[in-house]
Amino acid sequence: MKLYNDNDPAPNPRRVRIFLLEKGIDVPLVHVPLAEGKHKTPEFLAKNSLGQLPVLELDDGSTLSESVSICRYLEALHPEPALFGRSALESARIDMWIRRIELRVMMPAGMVWIHCHPFTAAYAASQGRAQFKDFGESNLKVFAGACRWLDGEIAGRAFVAGDTYSMADIVLQTTLDFGAAIGIDLPEDCKNLRDWYARVSSRPSAGQDLSKFPVQLARKGLAR
Amino acid sequence: MKLYNDNDPAPNPRRVRIFLLEKGIDVPLVHVPLAEGKHKTPEFLAKNSLGQLPVLELDDGSTLSESVSICRYLEALHPEPALFGRSALESARIDMWIRRIELRVMMPAGMVWIHCHPFTAAYAASQGRAQFKDFGESNLKVFAGACRWLDGEIAGRAFVAGDTYSMADIVLQTTLDFGAAIGIDLPEDCKNLRDWYARVSSRPSAGQDLSKFPVQLARKGLAR
Repeated sequence: MKLYNDNDPAPNPRRVRIFLLEKGIDVPLVHVPLAEGKHKTPEFLAKNSLGQLPVLELDDGSTLSESVSICRYLEALHPEPALFGRSALESARIDMWIRRIELRVMMPAGMVWIHCHPFTAAYAASQGRAQFKDFGESNLKVFAGACRWLDGEIAGRAFVAGDTYSMADIVLQTTLDFGAAIGIDLPEDCKNLRDWYARVSSRPSAGQDLSKFPVQLARKGLAR
Repeated sequence: MKLYNDNDPAPNPRRVRIFLLEKGIDVPLVHVPLAEGKHKTPEFLAKNSLGQLPVLELDDGSTLSESVSICRYLEALHPEPALFGRSALESARIDMWIRRIELRVMMPAGMVWIHCHPFTAAYAASQGRAQFKDFGESNLKVFAGACRWLDGEIAGRAFVAGDTYSMADIVLQTTLDFGAAIGIDLPEDCKNLRDWYARVSSRPSAGQDLSKFPVQLARKGLAR
């Protein structure tokens, strides 16, 4: 088994990095530098036709993509510590929170990145793809609204899905760090989320200093 | 246990309806008519703060939302027939396909619906929410491209994730039927998908005649 991944702050590669650290699993890594477009080569597209990281390659050469699906598979092979829940209900609740965070919080951050971020404008143009800037900017408000909704939801809880750290925390952590890296900060009034963020960021798995990533340079140019 | 749901062609309520039929599970139903806005009442928002269907209420009064998470929970209680896979790898692959269909195929259909469909324009205006019509219309092409990509991916396979019918088929079926109901058809050249569609639509779980839904009336007005 080997994992094709990058050290990029992009949320999907980082989800699996944090998951592996939390689980204490060591999977041989093949570095695929996103910044060099190595995820779009014919060799890589044969592994994931969507040209995205991460990809897990099994010993028979077959592949599995989608960060959360890779983590689910690794959890089945290495059940402890459980990050996808122990009971049927706990697992379903963690799944619900993963989905809510992806669809409600990550989605608007991604739309800002794709549609109105100066860093992606040149790339979009090179691909002949339009950026819809007004739509992109409208997602700044959607993101802030989603954070405030989530702030209320997690009141009184240590972690996103309950009292136990789970994959849902990893998905939210990487989403908020991605947001911060591209210039979308958590609203000041999200006290519960800020406390939660301090909690997960102090875990050894948080690892890297995101301020060192070059994408941070694009920050000043973003509509706030 | 009871399920709050509707007979609306909206993909999320329908996913759970099909899942229950395929599993042969009978869960007491509380009808929440989307068309009457009953999913936005204070009573319902206490069950799901996002104001969305479906919601599963457990005997202790706690709730679970997100269609796929509800189905995962019901699968754990009623393992047969397995619709989320049997082995760790099969389960991960089905999860990957659910995610790919939601993020690649459902997402652009939803963006068309939200941002450029005449049926939703009045509702968006009533909520003080802008529709980004150019962005919405750009998703017609994204949807068609995603269908063509998927058409290649499923070549030689009976079902989305392999040789066995799974939750991924339910997610795709409800997505394509939703698309058709709002006027976004599967491209003519998607032969594999058309064959697959005929296969899943002939299952008894496909049930309802979608052409009877009033949203169909909005079809002519959609930019094609």
